[in-house]
Amino acid sequence: MPIKNGKQYVDRLNKSNAHVWVRGEQVRGPITSHPAFRGLVATQASLYDMQGQDEYRSRMTYTSPTSGDPVGLSFLRPESKTDLERRRVMMSLWCDRHHGLLGRAPDYMNTAIMAFGAAADLLKENHPQYAENMKKYYEYCRENDITLSHAFILPPTARMSSFMRTLEEPDAPRVIEKTKEGLVVSGAFLLATQGATADEILIFPPALPSFADENPHAFAFAIPNNLPGLKLICRESLVAGDSEADYPLSSRFEEMDALVVLDHVVVPHDRVFVYGDEAVLSQFIEQSHFHTHATHQVLCRCIAKTELMLGVVESIIQTLGLRAYTQVIEKAAEVMTILESLKALLIASEALAQPDQWGTMLPNPSSLYAANCLYPKVIPRLMDIVQLLGASGLVMIPNDRDFKSEIGPDLSRYLKGIETDAQLKVRLFRLAWELSTSSFAGRQSLYERFFFGDSVKVSSRLYTNYTDKDVLAEKVKGMLN
Amino acid sequence: MPIKNGKQYVDRLNKSNAHVWVRGEQVRGPITSHPAFRGLVATQASLYDMQGQDEYRSRMTYTSPTSGDPVGLSFLRPESKTDLERRRVMMSLWCDRHHGLLGRAPDYMNTAIMAFGAAADLLKENHPQYAENMKKYYEYCRENDITLSHAFILPPTARMSSFMRTLEEPDAPRVIEKTKEGLVVSGAFLLATQGATADEILIFPPALPSFADENPHAFAFAIPNNLPGLKLICRESLVAGDSEADYPLSSRFEEMDALVVLDHVVVPHDRVFVYGDEAVLSQFIEQSHFHTHATHQVLCRCIAKTELMLGVVESIIQTLGLRAYTQVIEKAAEVMTILESLKALLIASEALAQPDQWGTMLPNPSSLYAANCLYPKVIPRLMDIVQLLGASGLVMIPNDRDFKSEIGPDLSRYLKGIETDAQLKVRLFRLAWELSTSSFAGRQSLYERFFFGDSVKVSSRLYTNYTDKDVLAEKVKGMLN
Amino acid sequence: MPIKNGKQYVDRLNKSNAHVWVRGEQVRGPITSHPAFRGLVATQASLYDMQGQDEYRSRMTYTSPTSGDPVGLSFLRPESKTDLERRRVMMSLWCDRHHGLLGRAPDYMNTAIMAFGAAADLLKENHPQYAENMKKYYEYCRENDITLSHAFILPPTARMSSFMRTLEEPDAPRVIEKTKEGLVVSGAFLLATQGATADEILIFPPALPSFADENPHAFAFAIPNNLPGLKLICRESLVAGDSEADYPLSSRFEEMDALVVLDHVVVPHDRVFVYGDEAVLSQFIEQSHFHTHATHQVLCRCIAKTELMLGVVESIIQTLGLRAYTQVIEKAAEVMTILESLKALLIASEALAQPDQWGTMLPNPSSLYAANCLYPKVIPRLMDIVQLLGASGLVMIPNDRDFKSEIGPDLSRYLKGIETDAQLKVRLFRLAWELSTSSFAGRQSLYERFFFGDSVKVSSRLYTNYTDKDVLAEKVKGMLN
Amino acid sequence: MPIKNGKQYVDRLNKSNAHVWVRGEQVRGPITSHPAFRGLVATQASLYDMQGQDEYRSRMTYTSPTSGDPVGLSFLRPESKTDLERRRVMMSLWCDRHHGLLGRAPDYMNTAIMAFGAAADLLKENHPQYAENMKKYYEYCRENDITLSHAFILPPTARMSSFMRTLEEPDAPRVIEKTKEGLVVSGAFLLATQGATADEILIFPPALPSFADENPHAFAFAIPNNLPGLKLICRESLVAGDSEADYPLSSRFEEMDALVVLDHVVVPHDRVFVYGDEAVLSQFIEQSHFHTHATHQVLCRCIAKTELMLGVVESIIQTLGLRAYTQVIEKAAEVMTILESLKALLIASEALAQPDQWGTMLPNPSSLYAANCLYPKVIPRLMDIVQLLGASGLVMIPNDRDFKSEIGPDLSRYLKGIETDAQLKVRLFRLAWELSTSSFAGRQSLYERFFFGDSVKVSSRLYTNYTDKDVLAEKVKGMLN
Repeated sequence: MPIKNGKQYVDRLNKSNAHVWVRGEQVRGPITSHPAFRGLVATQASLYDMQGQDEYRSRMTYTSPTSGDPVGLSFLRPESKTDLERRRVMMSLWCDRHHGLLGRAPDYMNTAIMAFGAAADLLKENHPQYAENMKKYYEYCRENDITLSHAFILPPTARMSSFMRTLEEPDAPRVIEKTKEGLVVSGAFLLATQGATADEILIFPPALPSFADENPHAFAFAIPNNLPGLKLICRESLVAGDSEADYPLSSRFEEMDALVVLDHVVVPHDRVFVYGDEAVLSQFIEQSHFHTHATHQVLCRCIAKTELMLGVVESIIQTLGLRAYTQVIEKAAEVMTILESLKALLIASEALAQPDQWGTMLPNPSSLYAANCLYPKVIPRLMDIVQLLGASGLVMIPNDRDFKSEIGPDLSRYLKGIETDAQLKVRLFRLAWELSTSSFAGRQSLYERFFFGDSVKVSSRLYTNYTDKDVLAEKVKGMLN
Repeated sequence: MPIKNGKQYVDRLNKSNAHVWVRGEQVRGPITSHPAFRGLVATQASLYDMQGQDEYRSRMTYTSPTSGDPVGLSFLRPESKTDLERRRVMMSLWCDRHHGLLGRAPDYMNTAIMAFGAAADLLKENHPQYAENMKKYYEYCRENDITLSHAFILPPTARMSSFMRTLEEPDAPRVIEKTKEGLVVSGAFLLATQGATADEILIFPPALPSFADENPHAFAFAIPNNLPGLKLICRESLVAGDSEADYPLSSRFEEMDALVVLDHVVVPHDRVFVYGDEAVLSQFIEQSHFHTHATHQVLCRCIAKTELMLGVVESIIQTLGLRAYTQVIEKAAEVMTILESLKALLIASEALAQPDQWGTMLPNPSSLYAANCLYPKVIPRLMDIVQLLGASGLVMIPNDRDFKSEIGPDLSRYLKGIETDAQLKVRLFRLAWELSTSSFAGRQSLYERFFFGDSVKVSSRLYTNYTDKDVLAEKVKGMLN
Repeated sequence: MPIKNGKQYVDRLNKSNAHVWVRGEQVRGPITSHPAFRGLVATQASLYDMQGQDEYRSRMTYTSPTSGDPVGLSFLRPESKTDLERRRVMMSLWCDRHHGLLGRAPDYMNTAIMAFGAAADLLKENHPQYAENMKKYYEYCRENDITLSHAFILPPTARMSSFMRTLEEPDAPRVIEKTKEGLVVSGAFLLATQGATADEILIFPPALPSFADENPHAFAFAIPNNLPGLKLICRESLVAGDSEADYPLSSRFEEMDALVVLDHVVVPHDRVFVYGDEAVLSQFIEQSHFHTHATHQVLCRCIAKTELMLGVVESIIQTLGLRAYTQVIEKAAEVMTILESLKALLIASEALAQPDQWGTMLPNPSSLYAANCLYPKVIPRLMDIVQLLGASGLVMIPNDRDFKSEIGPDLSRYLKGIETDAQLKVRLFRLAWELSTSSFAGRQSLYERFFFGDSVKVSSRLYTNYTDKDVLAEKVKGMLN
Repeated sequence: MPIKNGKQYVDRLNKSNAHVWVRGEQVRGPITSHPAFRGLVATQASLYDMQGQDEYRSRMTYTSPTSGDPVGLSFLRPESKTDLERRRVMMSLWCDRHHGLLGRAPDYMNTAIMAFGAAADLLKENHPQYAENMKKYYEYCRENDITLSHAFILPPTARMSSFMRTLEEPDAPRVIEKTKEGLVVSGAFLLATQGATADEILIFPPALPSFADENPHAFAFAIPNNLPGLKLICRESLVAGDSEADYPLSSRFEEMDALVVLDHVVVPHDRVFVYGDEAVLSQFIEQSHFHTHATHQVLCRCIAKTELMLGVVESIIQTLGLRAYTQVIEKAAEVMTILESLKALLIASEALAQPDQWGTMLPNPSSLYAANCLYPKVIPRLMDIVQLLGASGLVMIPNDRDFKSEIGPDLSRYLKGIETDAQLKVRLFRLAWELSTSSFAGRQSLYERFFFGDSVKVSSRLYTNYTDKDVLAEKVKGMLN
């Protein structure tokens, strides 16, 4: 099956019937109707629908090199700057639809699996079979429009045992045995975003050390979500309600995160990309340009989210008539400066792109790693600015039912804005509230702050890969003599 | 009735039966059992109970100068530094109980009404009757342990009409007529915190300009909550659930805010403190030392909240074993620096206190106005630090029902901390989440940011009242010759 | 004369013999040998020399459309994105030479005069002669490689009188009379950077209001520096010494700023670009795209300066062996993030360029106005980071003479770095000190903070011109229904 | 000799004739007349003079318990809160005189030596002689009003060898041999502030590790500045000129820093406080409460400096008429908030003081360690605010000679302020410039940023000693069950 539409996405999820837990209960019946998922699923479905619509098709698909079918453009391995631009246009169309609020819109994992597929030859020398598995899996995802999730964080105690350089943690994820059918794996992985509403999951944790010849903690693989022994345990849902008028964001964009528990899950051999060799595992994640390609997508998302922020900021300014206040204009200009910087980093990453050793056109890593350092620092400030401009308007938020009740006239009379009726004004502030102040906003904040690691990790990634630093230091040396 | 206990507080509220709206429905039946209020009411009741308990009585009450009964210490007009210290000890006892999360614990309005009562002579020259009303009302509140709320913000359009210096806004609050029974008032006021769970409400808005001899927009008065024509329209409730294990904060400390609508409410003459004279209204709020006395209470609260933040930060450090990370210690030290600064400002305000013209011992305004500028800036940073240390632990928050279900063992196995079992660790992170990342946290952030006005307003209050600035400028002039 | 070389630049300055004051004394004899100017003049001369050198000529000049001679590329009116790129390459060559430390390297005013020339038709309708003057002056500067300075700030009391909307300030700059020879002008203007070492000066202040038909305060013109009645009064020189080893920056890059005093100076009619009409004056500055073209140059400079900062930061890290410290790497990554953002904004301004109404290719204003908001905020942080990494090494700075004296061996022994000898290390720290901590650094900081106005002004320029804000607000409105 | 006066201070310095190097030349003749020192020496002399003046004597001296003579109050070992207050009053008198710009006004080292003397019994058990030496040295300093400097930083390579845990650095400071006369010491120490203008120097570095029984790198002692083999090599002088009108700060408050080089210096046995035992060395610095007592003095200084900042800020506001600008008032209020916080921390440190194990009244360490974390972060912001308000006024700074020359009238006409004549205004801005933007300001910034170590070190000191953190974490634990 080439590109799928929303209905096919929904049907496949319900047919899969994965083992999912929410709030102490196993999800029975169609997951796509469950209150914690239905809004999100409808949004994702609308994204898949776009691919096939006349308005978007040519900008969102390309012809598969193997099947000749139309496949999703975010699977495209870029070979030119034009390809990068096509990818960006496609991703921005989706991002505009979900305002950058979905971290796991399909293009993210499509891009990830494209990056791994394009770099599969890294695995060839020592593990030709794994290289083959990787390439085939990329093709399989592309040709079947697989909705993929991933998990790559170890539980805290396992991480700690790594840090302590001990191997005593009995609960660290590991390959328990190797059978004819595949690797038998047990353990847990943190934070599969949209894990419960995906077809498959990519498991790709950092390796713990081991003294064994075949490190049982070093592995990467992808499996269907409904394999026996695989459980998805969801965090608390942050859907505040189904009403789009009252909860314009959480009713549609609440991506659930899940703990993935594997209990003697049998991973088929052809789904294994790395096993037993921690050096290869590290090398593959570092040298496959995964972070670079992924950030090209991530930045499209961050821009769309920042545009929503600016749209809300400007709407508040108009509604409350704040243009005369210099402290307000300074804050709006701060949002604009952030937005322009993000857009510029994206454009620069393409303008300065270079082909890598496999002929893939690689966006400029420095621009993108800088964006990885920048966004976690500015996102809380963007939320702060919305709070500072929204002020008491973010507290006094009645809802749609209030307006429809007998006190509606009071609200209409006393909560109106400058040339804005009260109901529209309240809806604007409810949107601003969900965006900046609510539990939904809090999770968005956390998500962005730690997307590719904490500040130390993203700083180190930028610093280490920043080759110009030596050139510039050399130039300084020239000034000293 | 002297000090009341929790039961009396509850009974009085239910008997009052004020006209309250939540989520498009009028509250029928006992408000103290309503899901949006019951947790808060129980907390407030426990505060009232403390007053009469042997452990606290001597530190929380004093003997009424009129009735000889024990009355609440936060009503005490301080005449010495020791009185200030007694007030602080009393207020800290309550703050410790609610961790500074209640902005309208009873001592806040008790303090406010004490300040107004102590300064009532400001009204004497032109309006001896109003001065008398003010004093009597203070005594009435003290002797009856009245639970008071207040509203002092105008709706945006009314504010704007003030700014524009026009009087055309038909919906601005005003006195419609003056009858034998009292002033007939219509209009709306924003953000009566705990308005729906108070006995009475103090209405004290800034005056709009008027060309009339008797400015209909200039007034201040206090009325019972259940007067005919008075409606309280609540914002969305942020109680996430009744379970204290899952929602340790919002289940107990969610203070509801309300829009107060007055529709031809008759305010008895003896409840009027100012009317018709905008100059007197402004002068009374500025010169009564209300902000100074109130901030002495507010600072106790801010300290208790910051102590909770530090307790959570240190608990996370211990649970995740983070003491070896310099970037973590720097953040913890930042919280400590904030806490020590706040504590020092409180101590200094007492050490530098001076009696005012009426013999009331006035804490040092500069220390306190500085705290008003400081806290709105640090509270978002405190929340940021909790987020930065909590990280993914704030996302993966299953609840109590998950632990009790058949997946409980998985959670216990994979979510444990360093020497902390998983359930305790998850509870800690749920507390940290409610404190820093949830909708409850968002409202706390807004509340502190705008407590006594926005940054321009609190800065201006500090600057204008900072008499030392002229001394220091003069000293500089001495250096220039 | 087409492009000039360094010697010609020097000769012309000395021949001009303008009326310049430094430290209470009039400069007599060749200004280019004066201690306050000689280092700067040598640097500027080396820039002019580059234009004619084989290594650079083709990248730094183009063929004059009128004379056929090679003229400076920063005079080129861009008509394509390629032209913008050529301009950027040229400007970056100069910026690399002076490390972005010269705000008035020749390309800045060349660009300014190009922008005004290209937009001269704005003046055509009401003042065809002024349009003609403007165009001819641009051509004159280009064909004669004129070194131009400018002054556009009013003295504080004149500004204040504008703010107060009074016209009583007797010392506000004004046209005193209009004679056959020209306009007779008196008054003072602030801060002509490199004013004392330029051939000519462009005077272009904001207009003060007037009730006269011909506003005597509204004018713009350019005149030779040595006209009778024109005095240049310099601020204190910040050249710390001539030794490049000890003062690698201030010995070469100290741009003097001057107060320009006009006392009945006769401005020839053909040098007048605007007179008498404050609306035209404002319109010309706003609509000529001056800020946009100028910022394209300014950003090249800011990037070169930031590269120097990063070079110094990395050199300190290498010299002290600091790579293992996470707090150091976070700071270095912060510098990199700033540098990448600036580079990206420059690239984006070209990638998104559009031709204006006169066919000039206009870099994207939003990218560039964002850079105007960004740089004043980051430059102090960049200096902070150098201080934080340099630490005590920035205090203990002996000089070259110390090393050459009998205590040299002590210094060589005790001040060496990790694999760096003491003298080289001290030179590095002296460079870092001049860049971050010295009076020279302080003036650089001030210069960048206020380059195009204070924060309110640059924020307002970005906000007002940001057309996307309405599109984004409209999109938000679409989400509310 | 009890308290000395300025003349005695000067005479003693000149008589001492220490071996001092400045700018590649050995200082010959009276050091107190040398351009790099004379302004500073005059300021220090005026401080010593104050002690004996009628106006101050009773507030600045107390009766020596041994000689009965008046001795300096900063030598007083506090035994009550009143003693702490007396100490604070005395130190503030000196700080007001030098505006907090002298880090080594005599009270700093007087306080340090008092702290060490009061805690000398820490050395008693293992080294009774050293305890005795310490006590006697304290008494000697007090009774002779010794001007003391100290050095406690190792050169970078020595520090690095400590970090690397190697002992190979041949140039690390060490005891070379032990003779009848004393310990023979060689090595260098960084940054003896006012080292060249002191009578004696305390050498108290952190110990490097050693495998020897008697660690040659572990020592602390005090010696006269003029011992054979002791050289003081000064950094570049930042005195910009002798004119107090032009350089009101650097002409008077430029504290020189020096590298102390010891070449086989013989330290008399009775001047040794610790030797050979790195554990004792560390314990003594940590447990003597040196940091606490010293910070009580330091905070007086930081307050005086912040008061100068605020005086300058307010003077600029008055001179330029800026009170109507909200962004200006916010900045002034920020300075006030910082000042009030610092003052409060000082007051709180006394209010919460407790006697230590030796009966010395110890100010509250948490308040003071918090101040150590706070000031390095706010001092750059204070300087920023002065720059942001001073703006172009900090660039256009002519000097006194300009005003006296024939262009004086031009300056007087065009540089005047709102109701301030030009000369006074320029002097104000020159003061602001020296305080915020000059090389003198840069060194002040560095000095404060690293006074008691970098951010990691001061944070760790606060965190480690903050006993309340466990109480607060325990309280949180109580909320989780």
